[in-house]
Order: sequence, then C-alpha cells, then structure tokens
Amino acid sequence: MKGKVVLVGAGPGDPELITVKGLKALRQADVVVYDRLVSPSLLNECKPGCERIYVGKGYGEAEIQEEINELLVRKAREGKTVVRLKGGDPYVFGRGEEECIYVMEMGIDCEVIPGVSSVTSGPLLAGIPLAGRLSEPAFTAFTATRAGGGLIEPEYVPSRGNIVVVMGASKLKEMSDILLARRSPDEKVAVIRNASLPDMEVVVTTLAQLRNLESVKPPALIVVGKAVDLRDRLWKVK
Amino acid sequence: MKGKVVLVGAGPGDPELITVKGLKALRQADVVVYDRLVSPSLLNECKPGCERIYVGKGYGEAEIQEEINELLVRKAREGKTVVRLKGGDPYVFGRGEEECIYVMEMGIDCEVIPGVSSVTSGPLLAGIPLAGRLSEPAFTAFTATRAGGGLIEPEYVPSRGNIVVVMGASKLKEMSDILLARRSPDEKVAVIRNASLPDMEVVVTTLAQLRNLESVKPPALIVVGKAVDLRDRLWKVK
Repeated sequence: MKGKVVLVGAGPGDPELITVKGLKALRQADVVVYDRLVSPSLLNECKPGCERIYVGKGYGEAEIQEEINELLVRKAREGKTVVRLKGGDPYVFGRGEEECIYVMEMGIDCEVIPGVSSVTSGPLLAGIPLAGRLSEPAFTAFTATRAGGGLIEPEYVPSRGNIVVVMGASKLKEMSDILLARRSPDEKVAVIRNASLPDMEVVVTTLAQLRNLESVKPPALIVVGKAVDLRDRLWKVK
Repeated sequence: MKGKVVLVGAGPGDPELITVKGLKALRQADVVVYDRLVSPSLLNECKPGCERIYVGKGYGEAEIQEEINELLVRKAREGKTVVRLKGGDPYVFGRGEEECIYVMEMGIDCEVIPGVSSVTSGPLLAGIPLAGRLSEPAFTAFTATRAGGGLIEPEYVPSRGNIVVVMGASKLKEMSDILLARRSPDEKVAVIRNASLPDMEVVVTTLAQLRNLESVKPPALIVVGKAVDLRDRLWKVK
C-alpha cells in the first residue's frame, strides 16, 4: 500500500464552496491535516476512523510549517492517503507549494486540487466584481507582509487596476502608505471580513480615510479600485 | 411563484472543479443558460425537464450579451429558477456583473456563486504557484484586449510579481511588447492551454522568446514571473 498526499483547497469558509473534487478526496482520506480557517463542518464529511489532525495554522503563523511538512510525509509513509485541507486555494498565499515540494522531494506522490480563493470570492460575495468590462481589465493581489516579515514594496503595485490586499487587517496604516505611493486618495476601498461566512462584514471608505479605520480582526481583505464603485449596484446579491 | 437568476461559476473546465454549492444550484434549475467553455458533462446533472439553452459565448464574443441578459429576465419572469452557468468565476473576466446588474435592475433576484477561476487554477495545475513565500508576494491578472477592442496598457502591469494574461492566445506579439515595457526579457514564461482538461498543454519559454511562439488556440493563459521557475519542482503534480 503506497501512501500519498493530496493538497485540497477548501475555499473561503462557506463549507459548500469546496469543489466536488476536493470533497471527494476528503471523503477518501485516511488522515486529514487541517488549518484554523477550514470550516469545522467539512470534517464531518470524513469517513469513519479517519484521523483528523488540527495544525492551527492561520494567516501569518509560519513556525510550524516544517512540522507540518514532516507530519504529511510520516503519515504517507504509513501507507495512508493524507489530505491536507487548506483555506482558499493551495497556491494563492496558501503555502501549498512548500508542502508539495517537500513531499515530492521525499519521494511521495502529491496531488494538488485547486480551491476557490478568497482573493476572488471575497470581493464577489461583497458585490465587488474584480475584473470585467464594467470594472477594470486587471487586478493585482498581494500580501501585506512578505516572507521574513518586511512589508510589501510599492513596485508590486501597478498604477491602474483593482487591488486586493490579503493579511493586511492589522496593518491598515502601512498599507495606506504603500497604496498611496501609487494610487489616488479618492479611490474607493472596501474592507471585507469573514468573507462567505454568516458574520461577513464589509466597510467602504476611501484610500485617504483607510488609515483612520479601527484595526480589523483577521481574516480580512482590503479591496481598492473601480470595482468597489460597482458595489452599490450589486451588493444585494446573496 | 417568483423566478430568480443564479450565476454559477463552473470552474476551469474539469467538471469536478465546480463547487458543491454551484452543483446544488444546477440540480435545482428549471432553466440552464450555458457557455461554450462549460463542460458538457455538467449538463447531465440537470433535473429531468430542465431547459438547457446554449448561448455559445466564449472569450471575446460580446455581441450577444444583451440577448443573454434579456433571456435571463424573460425566463425568470415565467417564475423559473434560471441558472446562468459560466466558465471560471463569474466576476473574474466572466461578465457576471453585467448580467447581475441587468437582472437586478429589472427587479429580479440574483444570486452569484463564486467559482474556481482559471487565473489561479490554470497555473496550479501546471505546477506554477502564483503567490507564496517561495514564489512572489503578489500576482496580477489582466486581459489582453479591453472592452472596445484596444490592448491593455502598460500601466496595469507592475514591475514586480507574477503575471497571468487571459485571452492573449492570439496576441503573443502584442503581449510581448507590453510585458517587455515593464519586465526583463530573461523572465520565464509559461503558456497554458486547456487548463484542467485531459488535453492540457504547457509550453515554457522566456519573455524574449514569447513573440516567436506559434499562435496558440484559445483558451490559453500566459504566465510570467518567478512562479514559472518553480515548475521544475512541482510539475509532476497531477
């Protein structure tokens, strides 16, 4: 019996926003290794006897990544099918590539199943269309804090197009400075918290005013650009 | 009986990459209005008697958008639940916002269910991690051709971070010029065709060489940046 690892993107939080393929993999798992941002009700889909291991990793917690990598390999070497269930999409700020590279370098098969990223679905569920003819022909997504702890540099921010900042909830002032280096203070901004969950919250402001918002509890997205202007015509969307 | 419209993102092509929520909506539909890029096997999920209407719209075909808008409203006014099934995600180059605004302005309820965008899943399935600690802290997605037919402007392209170009398959030379206005000719480029389908193809080149590639049949993505360098360590991923 040969073990393997399957990285599954669980989507933004609503358990029904996992893919059919991801759910199928979850139901076949012998072991599930899951994050803080994964819906608890998804774990009820596991088969009887499936081992469920919580690794408590949310945005910004990096220390235990090596331990997670080793755990995936150890369980797969026992001949088990290991599902690594991650919030959002494994390769969009999900660190799935770190796990996949490690697992494959250890000689173990690794499959990666894409998920609905909160980068795209968070704005959608807030009535904000990221890219299209009425909105903008481009969007950029970036993380507030880089690997190693430094802030994102303005070179990553284009002068036009919609923007989504992830992991910026506790850094509204710093993100204001970086965004204002490239963009007009009049641009509309939406801060979206707990996208797709029943307690989702959206606050709309301007780039000039963003630094004055109260700090937001993660997980939250900061969306900037013309897309936010369309919200008035779309936000009644369930 | 009050009709309504539900916009559903079907994902990049593999029928199992629709969300559980999207599939549930599809199974409850009285009418399904679907695009060329939607997997035919998804239509087998419709309930008996469900009316299936093909509107043949792929990338770059805009003329019939008004007809589609009116069709959605007409069917909903008959008291029907109308599912508008779209490739990818409705608000990521999907024109879902045009349909949603029209439907809501006609006084009809509209729900939008996010999907797995090919912008993120195409690279993933080609072994290319768009955003993360080993890759880059940012990515930008843009369409080659804007509404009205003009090319995207270089102002939408940041000087750093990974890039995904959609609808650029027939415009490799023009995209080379725009990308080279901002980026180094040495940067790696992947052209991904039919992402997630059994006949998916990936060609890797450099930005300097991109203009010399044979034209690619749509749908295809052009991916530029450090993420492409990681493919050698990830591409065996199924």
